[in-house]
Amino acid sequence: MASGDNSTLFNDSLPYTVPEEYKNGVYLDYNATTPLHPEVIDTMASAMRKLWRNPSSTYSERVRDAISKARAQTSDVIGAKPEEIIFTSSGTEANNWILEAIVSWASELRGLAEGKPCIVTSDIEHDAVSKKVLALQAKGLCDVKMVSGAQGGRVNVRDVVDNCSENTCLISIMLANNETGVIQPVAEIGQELIRINIERTEKGLKPILFHTDAAQAVGKIACDVTKLNVDFLTIVGHKFYGPRIGAVYCRSEYMSILKKHPFLWGGGQERGYRPSTENTVDIVGLGQACEVVQRNLSDWASHFYKTGSYLKDSLIETFGKNLDFNFPVLSEFLLPNTFSVHFVGKEREGFKVLNQAEYLQASTGAACHSGKTTVSIVLLHSGLSKEAAKNTIRLSIGRTTTKEEIDITIKDLYQAVQKLTGIFL
Amino acid sequence: MASGDNSTLFNDSLPYTVPEEYKNGVYLDYNATTPLHPEVIDTMASAMRKLWRNPSSTYSERVRDAISKARAQTSDVIGAKPEEIIFTSSGTEANNWILEAIVSWASELRGLAEGKPCIVTSDIEHDAVSKKVLALQAKGLCDVKMVSGAQGGRVNVRDVVDNCSENTCLISIMLANNETGVIQPVAEIGQELIRINIERTEKGLKPILFHTDAAQAVGKIACDVTKLNVDFLTIVGHKFYGPRIGAVYCRSEYMSILKKHPFLWGGGQERGYRPSTENTVDIVGLGQACEVVQRNLSDWASHFYKTGSYLKDSLIETFGKNLDFNFPVLSEFLLPNTFSVHFVGKEREGFKVLNQAEYLQASTGAACHSGKTTVSIVLLHSGLSKEAAKNTIRLSIGRTTTKEEIDITIKDLYQAVQKLTGIFL
Repeated sequence: MASGDNSTLFNDSLPYTVPEEYKNGVYLDYNATTPLHPEVIDTMASAMRKLWRNPSSTYSERVRDAISKARAQTSDVIGAKPEEIIFTSSGTEANNWILEAIVSWASELRGLAEGKPCIVTSDIEHDAVSKKVLALQAKGLCDVKMVSGAQGGRVNVRDVVDNCSENTCLISIMLANNETGVIQPVAEIGQELIRINIERTEKGLKPILFHTDAAQAVGKIACDVTKLNVDFLTIVGHKFYGPRIGAVYCRSEYMSILKKHPFLWGGGQERGYRPSTENTVDIVGLGQACEVVQRNLSDWASHFYKTGSYLKDSLIETFGKNLDFNFPVLSEFLLPNTFSVHFVGKEREGFKVLNQAEYLQASTGAACHSGKTTVSIVLLHSGLSKEAAKNTIRLSIGRTTTKEEIDITIKDLYQAVQKLTGIFL
Repeated sequence: MASGDNSTLFNDSLPYTVPEEYKNGVYLDYNATTPLHPEVIDTMASAMRKLWRNPSSTYSERVRDAISKARAQTSDVIGAKPEEIIFTSSGTEANNWILEAIVSWASELRGLAEGKPCIVTSDIEHDAVSKKVLALQAKGLCDVKMVSGAQGGRVNVRDVVDNCSENTCLISIMLANNETGVIQPVAEIGQELIRINIERTEKGLKPILFHTDAAQAVGKIACDVTKLNVDFLTIVGHKFYGPRIGAVYCRSEYMSILKKHPFLWGGGQERGYRPSTENTVDIVGLGQACEVVQRNLSDWASHFYKTGSYLKDSLIETFGKNLDFNFPVLSEFLLPNTFSVHFVGKEREGFKVLNQAEYLQASTGAACHSGKTTVSIVLLHSGLSKEAAKNTIRLSIGRTTTKEEIDITIKDLYQAVQKLTGIFL
């Protein structure tokens, strides 16, 4: 894939041959979900057989020990303390809970006469944050200030700070966007908040709490709650080769907020923070997935860079001006595995191109919006033109993505666009 | 275990020998949780490797098909239609959601001027119902009428009916109690409700909806939503050899209530009813567990009866008047696997006896309350005296429980009580 001469490259390769192992598809949609890491499968398979007893039962020390180990593995990967981790059923539940609990806490603090608590968030958050924030607002429980991601898909720190007022109880800004791969200035906002919260304390105001949805960041870039200076962070296992559960990180001094405002009511599991019999199999799987990240992240960083560079070069060489990168890939502001690109021109809508692809499994945006032919709001809010957004394809590579898979992807995209538009690029 | 002569039975068997396979414990706590059925393990292990793609992605037909199959398997086991099933992360979530959604729906219907919607429930419900109902009441969202289970652990149909008023929006009565095993008169209440709801319709009132938490019933007795005449039913996988997730059954005509009042806000998964990326592995495991129940329930019924009879006879023969059955075991009003019993007298508290047991793994009440030395409220509300409740041990047998395990249990209980009280029974 080093030639710029497309006719040479493809003239005898349509239909092109694909090795048997890729006949079922080339997966470049690792932001949608990931397979379970082999160590995670082993851990879960063993737990299915050996750790099935109810963690709450007196005789279940072994199960409780396994859950404690998973809690430590999970806290390690974000530089937190084990007791600051609460396992949840998903990132959605984690986000919903954090938002609702903090609004409830702030309402009680302020009392009804002094105005509603306000959440500052962005217009490029995942639905699990944005729809919950809007639901809280619709119920009259809080006000909402939305900052824009239109400057290159990245919120502006100054905008976030300027939107804070005395009633602000929470800032919720994602760590990395799932569709664009753009990394948000969370650490910078955290720094500003330290200053702001000192001033607030002097005025007798409660601090503004800070939440980041790190669903798409853990396992791709380093995430340290201390460096980020966040109070709450959302973890989602299946984005980093773990199972389909999540976890809440909550800074120890604010754990009482979650204890007092549970999301679910029932038994006393998870030390009284979250009822329902613990999903031990998934919890130990999540712990193992975190440990695998902790051990390998730096290796993957170089893999992502190498493989990503090859993908970038291949796209440029093959498609030239027919393809635009929506964001500066492989820069410090982007997840190293995420390539949000679009073909230029008519009849090159992302979903149409992907429909024509024979092997490539990728998406036009968030998986939960797959199959929809409407334009992604997040892409529009990230500053893309309507045509660019409509034509966007998100290629997200994984830990095991090979050059061979990228070669197939390029050929597949080439023939897809050719079929759609009837012309050679 | 056919002798009534205890001295003969035990005189040379303290310490008694236990086969190697039971050295790690004899598990008679199948109401707390169950191991995964081998077919469930196989299904989940295969899904971990093959069905990891995001169900929402366009290319994931195979995953969607597997989830559809699980939905059909789950609906089959309760005589429902597949589209009436929504998978949840747990029974706790299912119960919380149903209660909250119906209260929200009823509030909108009635408007604020006409009084709060009212829930009729019992004082022997699981915490996942009772604590949520009290939380809704504490927020001023509904009134609550509690009917008593004090008559033999069973609510009275007339009490339930008499507690209904014009403002009643929901009756929530469990199908079988986890601690006592007592089966509640759900079908009878359902029959009464048909009549009541006809009268309400004539008066222009909305019908009273009917929910049953069938967590402890599915897999032990036949549960058919049509025969029970319930509108909502809660399913919990890990109580019948399935994974740690749950499902909501909602009669099709009321699905719009759940659509309009979601519990979680986020993506459009589960046909728009419940966001968060589907936990495919657990969902197909739940489906498989339901299929196994559907196929084998009648066989287990006879196993439960046979093994249960042996347990009952052994307890009577060995302990005589020293042990009381809290409820009429093996009757039509009790789960066939559940034996709530207590030793008579001082220093025979359930938790102390179980602490002295070398092999027996059982509990004094709900698993989520394990380790607590307080008396179970549910047992007190089920009509037990304080001493009986304090001394209670719940033995719950499983599909594979053997006579050998029961023999060990009896010996173990015998030596435990002997150690505690220092005298032969």
